[in-house]
Amino acid sequence: MDMVKVNSMDFGEFVDVFGNIVEKCPLIAAAVWSQRPFSGLEDLENHFFAFIDALPRSGQEGILRCHPDLAGRDLQQGTLTAESQREQSQAGLTSLDTDDRLRLQQLNAQYRERFGFPFVLAARLSDRATVPRELARRLQCQPESELRTALGEVKKISHLRLTDLLGAHSHSARVELP
Amino acid sequence: MDMVKVNSMDFGEFVDVFGNIVEKCPLIAAAVWSQRPFSGLEDLENHFFAFIDALPRSGQEGILRCHPDLAGRDLQQGTLTAESQREQSQAGLTSLDTDDRLRLQQLNAQYRERFGFPFVLAARLSDRATVPRELARRLQCQPESELRTALGEVKKISHLRLTDLLGAHSHSARVELP
Repeated sequence: MDMVKVNSMDFGEFVDVFGNIVEKCPLIAAAVWSQRPFSGLEDLENHFFAFIDALPRSGQEGILRCHPDLAGRDLQQGTLTAESQREQSQAGLTSLDTDDRLRLQQLNAQYRERFGFPFVLAARLSDRATVPRELARRLQCQPESELRTALGEVKKISHLRLTDLLGAHSHSARVELP
Repeated sequence: MDMVKVNSMDFGEFVDVFGNIVEKCPLIAAAVWSQRPFSGLEDLENHFFAFIDALPRSGQEGILRCHPDLAGRDLQQGTLTAESQREQSQAGLTSLDTDDRLRLQQLNAQYRERFGFPFVLAARLSDRATVPRELARRLQCQPESELRTALGEVKKISHLRLTDLLGAHSHSARVELP
């Protein structure tokens, strides 16, 4: 998909394609459509990030709360989004043994209790051995810095999902903006 | 459900229950959870409305763009949310004859083209005869005032959905705020 195609989309198509760039937050894609045309992947991505950065703290926490636990209830029940299912699978989180899964559930619960949002991590940049270590480490962080870290992970996930959709075309098919 | 119960919910439960108060915008419910405890339905509702009002214009348009057309593609394909299905059914929009449905589709398309968001109306406060008349009327409005009208309809829908969930209990079970 190239940017000429992206810039020609009506809002219905745009939300169909980009609605889950930020997990379960089609509102953000639907808002970003207002900023078209986009000059390339980076420009499009920057509009997603600017929207996130401009939200009040409750809204930023709200974004995090729309994310599933890693190796959590949604994975067990088969109710993950397609994107999250693929990402957790690539990190090996869909094939944990019972002990590792219970250990992660316990850490996830502690994290949710401490910060009021779930542990968010770009799973594709991690693996089954690293996830619980990183979770245990971030559990010790201060709430203010942890919110920033978690939003940084949301942006990494968004970048990877946008790259999946736009791939190499996004750089080669830059369009002239008016 | 009374407010004691609502105020005791963790964010996962809260988003499960209130995630579609604003159509397909669980981000808003997830943000509102930060404002607990709530003294009653009106207080809870005001936090939803305050979040909507504080969004930049693109975000407000984004909320509208997460709504389906009335008697549109999602209804035909069976992909409406449960709440929207019920509301459109109560307004008689699920049993239109072909001529009426095509007329509405045509008006919806004109409206989306003119304003850049879909026609949003609290269907439960309307009926199959009124919907196309109101759509044709609002199609003539100025974009600025039409955005305000449409967000007012989002709030009416949210109010009705909250009342469905909280009903009479919400007034009788007020809790003391700290």
